[in-house]
Amino acid sequence: MNNRTGPPGPSEIERLSLSIIDAEVPEPRPFEGDEWVIVRRMIHTSADFELLELVDFHPDAIEAGLGAITRGCLLATDTEMVKVGIGPRRLEKWRCTVECHIGDEEVVRRSRGEGITRASAAVDRVFNRINGGIYVIGNAPTALMRLLDLVESGLCRPALVVGMPVGFVNAAESKERLVEQGRVPYITIRGRKGGSALAATVINALAGLAKERIQKEIP
Amino acid sequence: MNNRTGPPGPSEIERLSLSIIDAEVPEPRPFEGDEWVIVRRMIHTSADFELLELVDFHPDAIEAGLGAITRGCLLATDTEMVKVGIGPRRLEKWRCTVECHIGDEEVVRRSRGEGITRASAAVDRVFNRINGGIYVIGNAPTALMRLLDLVESGLCRPALVVGMPVGFVNAAESKERLVEQGRVPYITIRGRKGGSALAATVINALAGLAKERIQKEIP
Repeated sequence: MNNRTGPPGPSEIERLSLSIIDAEVPEPRPFEGDEWVIVRRMIHTSADFELLELVDFHPDAIEAGLGAITRGCLLATDTEMVKVGIGPRRLEKWRCTVECHIGDEEVVRRSRGEGITRASAAVDRVFNRINGGIYVIGNAPTALMRLLDLVESGLCRPALVVGMPVGFVNAAESKERLVEQGRVPYITIRGRKGGSALAATVINALAGLAKERIQKEIP
Repeated sequence: MNNRTGPPGPSEIERLSLSIIDAEVPEPRPFEGDEWVIVRRMIHTSADFELLELVDFHPDAIEAGLGAITRGCLLATDTEMVKVGIGPRRLEKWRCTVECHIGDEEVVRRSRGEGITRASAAVDRVFNRINGGIYVIGNAPTALMRLLDLVESGLCRPALVVGMPVGFVNAAESKERLVEQGRVPYITIRGRKGGSALAATVINALAGLAKERIQKEIP
């Protein structure tokens, strides 16, 4: 019983939104194919067209992310906002799990005792299980820095890092370091911008791409 | 045991971030006093200085928000992201509660049956308890439109509406309507931009202001 004469329904709003973005970013676009699907979704989340100049994909990022998701990987997030932004249902068909350790008692204790951020201490709770998984960072440069320490020491190797901390102290620097390290595929936003909603959106867009591929494979 | 020679700790990062924003937005600023405390915090969350031109406060908004919070009001949010972004602890000293009804069974059923968004159906779950409370919208223009229908019909009167839906279909229009209605104080972001993180940040900044006032009142 859709109200066809009333305001647009949920799926129509989404379709219309994406077509507006398509129209406002005429071809040739700085991103194509699956990359555009992801960046367009990020613009949809933020209404920020500056992302066209800031988003950066490692060449293997999308395939690595799709592979990890369809294998039912672990996703670790730096904030509860990223975790709820991803939502439980989108990834359940592949039995992926999403964990956020920012509120763990041990994390709170270490943060107080050592004067480090909780986001950084939370990395240590999950690094030894994140090989082949995805680390999704939407807030804390210190989480990305700690993760890169562990990656560069050979102590962990996620399939993909969605590295989108936001802010004024070390956010841009942490993302430059993510781009310069040669060990793990990444999707990032250069400079100060980022955020939990954008990081979650990348995962939701990847889940959408994974679902599309399954539908194409079924004859 | 703070590591004083190492990287900056959590509280130092925050202080440094806010001082960078202060320095990059020299006086005279478009916002002063408590308004600047809130907008500066929003810039801290998003690294988006365009907010300087987009944030709009109803003249009674901050006092109405502080009054509602310190009376232990109900806060209703349109997304789980706003709810977890606010966090449980900041408001607990005043016994405020934060509710999000987007996942309620009845909301899902009505959304499917009537072809409306879940965010809009969720407004109907809480409107008759939101008088004197705060409605916090970080995502859905349809939630803000539905809330304004009820406000304009005299069916509810929140103390404050934090109206920051984001997007390309009716987001800007819903916020223009919020500014033009004369019944409830608001804090909004004009145009397409908005988001759950920004909406949650406004509440967290208000909670910080409320805490400061208490500390000033204790001799």
